[in-house]
Order: sequence, then structure tokens, then C-alpha cells
Amino acid sequence: MTDRNIGVANHQNAEALEYLAYDEALRHTQSEISHQLKSTPAVIRRLTSHLSRAVGKNIRARSLLTCAMRQDGQLVSDAVQIAAAVELLHLATLVHDDIIDNADKRRGLETLHKKFGEKAAVLCGDYLVCLALQLASAIKPHEDRYSLIPNTMPEYLTDVLAGELRQNQNNRNFALTERQYLKIITGKTAAMFEASFYAGFLLSDETESFKYQYLELGRNLGIIFQLADDCADYQAPQKTSKKPVLSDFKTGVVTLPLIYALKTDRSLHGRIMRGIEPLALKKAVESSGGLAYTHLKITEYFVKTKKIIMLLPSIPDKKDKLIALLEQSAGLPVGN
Amino acid sequence: MTDRNIGVANHQNAEALEYLAYDEALRHTQSEISHQLKSTPAVIRRLTSHLSRAVGKNIRARSLLTCAMRQDGQLVSDAVQIAAAVELLHLATLVHDDIIDNADKRRGLETLHKKFGEKAAVLCGDYLVCLALQLASAIKPHEDRYSLIPNTMPEYLTDVLAGELRQNQNNRNFALTERQYLKIITGKTAAMFEASFYAGFLLSDETESFKYQYLELGRNLGIIFQLADDCADYQAPQKTSKKPVLSDFKTGVVTLPLIYALKTDRSLHGRIMRGIEPLALKKAVESSGGLAYTHLKITEYFVKTKKIIMLLPSIPDKKDKLIALLEQSAGLPVGN
Repeated sequence: MTDRNIGVANHQNAEALEYLAYDEALRHTQSEISHQLKSTPAVIRRLTSHLSRAVGKNIRARSLLTCAMRQDGQLVSDAVQIAAAVELLHLATLVHDDIIDNADKRRGLETLHKKFGEKAAVLCGDYLVCLALQLASAIKPHEDRYSLIPNTMPEYLTDVLAGELRQNQNNRNFALTERQYLKIITGKTAAMFEASFYAGFLLSDETESFKYQYLELGRNLGIIFQLADDCADYQAPQKTSKKPVLSDFKTGVVTLPLIYALKTDRSLHGRIMRGIEPLALKKAVESSGGLAYTHLKITEYFVKTKKIIMLLPSIPDKKDKLIALLEQSAGLPVGN
Repeated sequence: MTDRNIGVANHQNAEALEYLAYDEALRHTQSEISHQLKSTPAVIRRLTSHLSRAVGKNIRARSLLTCAMRQDGQLVSDAVQIAAAVELLHLATLVHDDIIDNADKRRGLETLHKKFGEKAAVLCGDYLVCLALQLASAIKPHEDRYSLIPNTMPEYLTDVLAGELRQNQNNRNFALTERQYLKIITGKTAAMFEASFYAGFLLSDETESFKYQYLELGRNLGIIFQLADDCADYQAPQKTSKKPVLSDFKTGVVTLPLIYALKTDRSLHGRIMRGIEPLALKKAVESSGGLAYTHLKITEYFVKTKKIIMLLPSIPDKKDKLIALLEQSAGLPVGN
């Protein structure tokens, strides 16, 4: 351990700034994630390599890279490292989530704790957190505001964890209100989106006065993303869904479609307590308007968020990409 | 979330440097740890407050503060924050360790996962990692080399985790060699000591040329600490030991006293496989020389380490404190 270069990365700020186009930056980010997962120490490589086989949509990385776009359409190359860090941090939370939910599959592959045991999976999740934060901390401080980035991630990760804890404490709480639920997902899901948008903003040339717009954009996209996911859980036919249908309900997670259904259909609570059949539950949530109400909420956030994007002083390409991310979060088909 | 001060700490470098005496810095560190554990968000406060009730010996914090002592005997006040961060990071690893080992008690109190459930304990451990890294990242960059500190912690934490994974993979591996075992504990235990010594060194006024001495001191103290703990597990009568006697063996952890015993007493492996009685195992490890050999190793490290301390260009008070830490690591009674 003595001979490695401890923390030298911070001292390389003499290097020149490099710029990349968005597509190039995204490719670099995907290679960086894969490289990081495949070059861990031997003892953990089997686990992280397994994770590298299942590639996500990298919506958080793409959010960050999009926000980092400058008026000339280019991105500072440091964005690659931070975008990879955000995805690795997200991956760490998935590994621990899967232990907590005792999930069998993730992104179509066997979960880490099922394949390698719980102990190894807890440690691997911890390892990924460290790896991500190291990557984020090793950013070259080319600009003053870059120095805010390393602290951003653990700060937002605590919000994610607090949200997960809240969700855990409200397991099978059928009296959960919409307001409480929004607080949970603002942490659990939206905090990591907000972190991505904020870090991207810091790496861009947008002026300080637009900071709150970026924070709100990130938070809204995260909420929309979660609400769309909640609907899919009640809606999707099993064969097209990535995760088992009704997996939220089965693990005791109460989401907005169910919250609304419980409020409007007074008989539902009793039927759940007596052990409702999956198909009957799906029908009840549908016919009580739980799905329609959640879609309405998504639309409200969508309209509000699109307005913020349109008012940004950014180049058209950046705005188009932000709108595409917004549409994707809402579960709309990815456009032409 | 929008209204908090995201990452402002890094921008307060206009403040003047403050200095503290060692005892004062230690008191501040203990209050800071307690304050951090008691001021978490409501959803996690019951868990972290429970942890704050059981106070450890803070040997890592005291190592860091001692190493941070300057030629005038004072410490820069930033050391308090970093020392608290190191202890919180250590605490995080304990929370996850206890889940992994399914331990009932820690520092005389019920473990977190027993009291609050595994899910909450996994998330709480994650939370403490974030809290610690946030605290470490928010250090004011009064001196250039301070900027190396925030990156030091996740880097060393990955070594700790790799060591724990190695240990986990070698569970009930009765063919484990001394060399492999030393590699495990160099990560699992010694890495966090090395991190404490290194961070303390960076905060001190010791010249760069002494860096490797500090790294070696930390690593050696960690190894000594672990070997002494290994002996205690086979040696201590239940009533004086903090943890249940033979807890390592019972959880499948193979340590140096047993490794040596297995090498010299060829019948032992068979007896273990047939289900040896605890008392018989203790006797076998004792009579095969497993404990004596481990104590000899501790003494070798002790002598080597004391020599490094004596050759440091530090003030006598600092050297005395380093020797006291060394003695404590070796399990010697804390001197006058």
C-alpha cells in the first residue's frame, strides 16, 4: 500500500482543459464505468464484473452530460469522470436495495446477493460507494466551482438513504398520504437526479443565477421517473416489464397509484388485509382512478418542467436533449 | 432541498487557522462525533442515537490527533473534523460487519440490525459512510496538502472492504497461510489505522520526507491491534472480554493463533472437522504455541515500530503519545 500514489489526482491541475462532443463524452462515460467495474482488486472482480454485464440506460449520466453542455455544444472532459461516478453510486444503491428487497433479478441478471451471498453483496455495495466518491474527488479543479462537486455526492446520497429509510419504515403503511409519499421519493429517487443536474450545471458555463432551475429540473425529472415506474408496476404485462409486475406491492412498498386507490375505494383496504389476488388488485387500482391520477401528476410535473427547460438560455441542442430526457423519464417512447 | 447550502464548506477558506492543545482537540472530537450522531434526520436518528450511546476507545481518532501534533505541541483545529470522520467511517464498517457476522452485541449494546432490522442497518451504515466523507470533504483547504485528505478516506476504505471480502472468502479455510492472513488484516484493520496516521501527518508540520514513516507506523499499529485482538479471542475469560470468547472461530474466521496451531498440531484439523469443544480448541491453540507465536509476532512489530517512533524528529510529548498508542494497540495496560 505504501507505494501507490495516494491522492495525487488533485495535484494534476496544471493540465490543460479538454473538451468533448456529447456523443463522445457518453461513449467515454460508458467505457469508464465498464473499466472501473472490471479493474477492481481480484477479490471483488467477480462481483463487479457480473455487474458490468448488465448495462442500464445511464439516464443519470446522460442527464449530467447534457447539463454540462456549453454554449459551443462541447463538454469539459472532467464530466466523463463525474458521470461515471454518479452511475456507480446509483449502482451501489441498487446492490444494497436488492439485498433489502431480497430481489432475484436486476436488469435481467441474477442479483449479486443471490449469486455471491449477502455478505459479499453488502461489502460490494460499500466498495462501489467508495469507488464512486474517489472518482468524483479526483476531479481536476480547473474551475473554482468544480470543487463543490466532490461534496455534492455524499450529501445527496444521504438524501437517497434517508428516503429509502423512510420507505422502509412505511412498509405496508396503507395510511401513507400523497404528501408523505412525495417526500420519500424526493429523497429515494429524485435526489440522485438532482445531484446529476447540479454537477452537470457546475461543469457547464451556465451562470450562477440558473442554479435553482437546474436543481428543480433534476428533482422534477426524478419524481416523474419514479411515478412512471410506479404506474408500470401496476400496468405492464409481465412480458414487457423489466421487473416482476406488482413487485412494489409484494415487497410492501406503497406507491401513489395505490395511495389514491385506497383513498377513493374504501373497500380496498379490507380486501388487501384479507389477502387480495394480484389481478383483483391491479383492477382495483385501475378502476379507482389510481393510475389515471398518477398519470395526471406526471403530466403536471412534465408541463412545469418543460417550461423551465424552454426558458433556459441554452443552445437548442441542449434543450432538445433535456426534453428527450424528460420524455424518457415520463416513460414516453424515446423519440426519432 | 433547494434551500440548503450545498457544499459551501469548501468556500470558507478565508477564515483564520485555529490551533488547539491535544486534550482539547480530543474533547472536541468526542463532542463532534456525538453531535453528528445525534443531529441526523429524524428518520435515522433513533439508529444513530443508539450508536452514540456506546462510546469506543477512539484509538483511530487519537492516532490522528497525535500525528497531527506540531512542533509547538498544538494541532490545527481542522484535525477535529477529520478525526471525527475517521471514527464515523470506522463505525460504519462495524455496523455492516455486525450484519455480516450476525452479531448480537457491540460495545456492550444490542447491535443495530438486531434492534432495528437488517434493512435499516444496511442503510444506516451507508449513511454513516456518507456523513464521514462529507465531514472530511468539508475541510478548509488552509494548506495545499490538506486537499489530499478527502480522497484518502474512500481510498483506504476500499482497502478495508477488500480485506473484509478476502476474509469472507476465506471463511472456514483451515489451509489459510500466515502470509495470506497478514494480507487480509493489512486491509481489514491496518488500512484505517494507516489512513488515520496519514491524515494526521498531512495536518501536521512534519516534512514530506517523513510520510512513509507515518504510513508504516499506522499500518504496524493496525496489525498489532488485530493480532492482539486475535489472541484475546482465544485467551480471555468470558467475563473480561468485550466480545464473546471464540467468536472468531464460531463465525468461521481463521486467525493467526489458529493458523499456527493447525501447522504444528497435525491432529487439530481433523478434530475441528469432527466438531471440537470450545475448551478443547482453546487448549489446543494454547499448547501448540499458537498464542505464544502470535505474541512473538506482536513483539517483533512492536520493537520495529517503537524504533521508527524514536527516530521521528518530533517533540517528546508527541513521541510519548505515539508509544502509548502502540502499547495500547498491543493490548498492554494503558500506562500512567
